[in-house]
Amino acid sequence: MSFSSSLLEAAVNEFAKLPGIGKKTALRLALHLLKQKQEEVTFFSEAVNRMRKEIKFCRKCFNVSDTEVCNICSNTSRKQRIVCVVENIRDVIAIESTQQFSGLYHVLGGVISPLDGVGPDKLTIETLLSRLQEDEVEELIFALSPTIQGDTTLFYISKKIKELPVKITTIARGISFGGELEYADELTLARSIQNRQPVDHYIGGSL
Amino acid sequence: MSFSSSLLEAAVNEFAKLPGIGKKTALRLALHLLKQKQEEVTFFSEAVNRMRKEIKFCRKCFNVSDTEVCNICSNTSRKQRIVCVVENIRDVIAIESTQQFSGLYHVLGGVISPLDGVGPDKLTIETLLSRLQEDEVEELIFALSPTIQGDTTLFYISKKIKELPVKITTIARGISFGGELEYADELTLARSIQNRQPVDHYIGGSL
Repeated sequence: MSFSSSLLEAAVNEFAKLPGIGKKTALRLALHLLKQKQEEVTFFSEAVNRMRKEIKFCRKCFNVSDTEVCNICSNTSRKQRIVCVVENIRDVIAIESTQQFSGLYHVLGGVISPLDGVGPDKLTIETLLSRLQEDEVEELIFALSPTIQGDTTLFYISKKIKELPVKITTIARGISFGGELEYADELTLARSIQNRQPVDHYIGGSL
Repeated sequence: MSFSSSLLEAAVNEFAKLPGIGKKTALRLALHLLKQKQEEVTFFSEAVNRMRKEIKFCRKCFNVSDTEVCNICSNTSRKQRIVCVVENIRDVIAIESTQQFSGLYHVLGGVISPLDGVGPDKLTIETLLSRLQEDEVEELIFALSPTIQGDTTLFYISKKIKELPVKITTIARGISFGGELEYADELTLARSIQNRQPVDHYIGGSL
C-alpha cells in the first residue's frame, strides 16, 4: 500500500497489528476515525489507553476488575462456596451473560500445555488450592475447553484436591467437541451450567 | 455482555463503534491490547490520536497529507497536466499501489447523490474547475464508481468544462483479469464486447 501521509500510515500499521485485522480493514478503520470528530477519536484512544493502564486483576479470582477485588467476588449475594474454574476472562463474560450462575469464578489464565511451555506453575492453580481451603469451597465446577489440554488441567487439579471435601463437577457436554466457550450460544451454555455432572460420570468412573 | 470492569467495557464499546466490528470482535481486540506491553498500547492510541489531530488535506487535490500540499502534488517528476478524478482517499491509495499512473489526483470527497443530500456544492468540484484553468490540465481521467451517482457526477463535471481544452477520459470498464465470463453481469459483458480493443493494447498498454 502506498500512502501520501506518514500519519495515516502509522495509524493503519497500528490497526493492522490487531488480530484478524488485515491492511485493508486497518485502512477502513483509520479512515473512519479520520472522519469522526476530534473529541470522539480522543475518547477512543483514551478508553484504550486507560484500560491498559488502570485495569486490575482481582487478587482472589484473577478476573479483570477496576478494584483490588472484583465485583463478582465482593458480591455477598452470590454463592461464595461454589467456584467455577475457567481458562480466561472471555469465559467469565460468556458465563455471566447467561445469568444462570450465581457462584464465583477462578480464572486459570490458560490450561496446562507442555508443548506450549505452559506448566501448572504458570497458571493460578496454587492460589486456587489455598482458596479452596480458606473459603471452604463446597463445589468446584470446571468449565474448561473440551481439549486434551483442558482435560489434563482438570485431571491435574482433581488429583491435587481429592483429599479435600470438595465436590468436583464439569459443565455438561452440550457444547460440541472442538467448540470454544465464547462462541457457544447462550442457551447451550446456560444448560451446560445447570446440567453440570460429577467428574466420574465424565471420565467413565475411573477417577 | 456482562463485564466485571467498566474500563474494559468502555474500551470494548469504543471498538464496537468502528465499522464492521461487532461486540465479540471488539472484546477480542480489547483483550489483545490488554495483553500487550503498556508502551505498545500507548503507541497504538497515540498513532490514532495524532493522525486525527495532525493530518492535513492537500489544498490542491484534497488527498490526505502531512503537509499543506501533498507529496504527490509537490512531486515535480509526475505529469502535472494529467489529473485523475476519484471519490475518496482509498481510491488514491488503490491507484498508487498499481504504480502505473504518474499524473496527479483530485479527490472529490464523494459523488453527487441528491437522495443522500450530496449536491455538487458539497464536493470539491469548484476547486477542480479553477485548478483545470490555472494548471493548464490537458487530460482529466474519471475513475468514479460505475453507478448512477458516479455517472451523474461525470456528466455534471463534463458539462461544466466542455468549453475548456481538456481531454476527458474514463478508466476502462470490462471483465476483470481472472474474472470468469459466465459470472460477469450482462451489462459489463455487453459493454466489454462493444468496447473491444486491439490485441496490442491488451499486451502493452501502459500510461
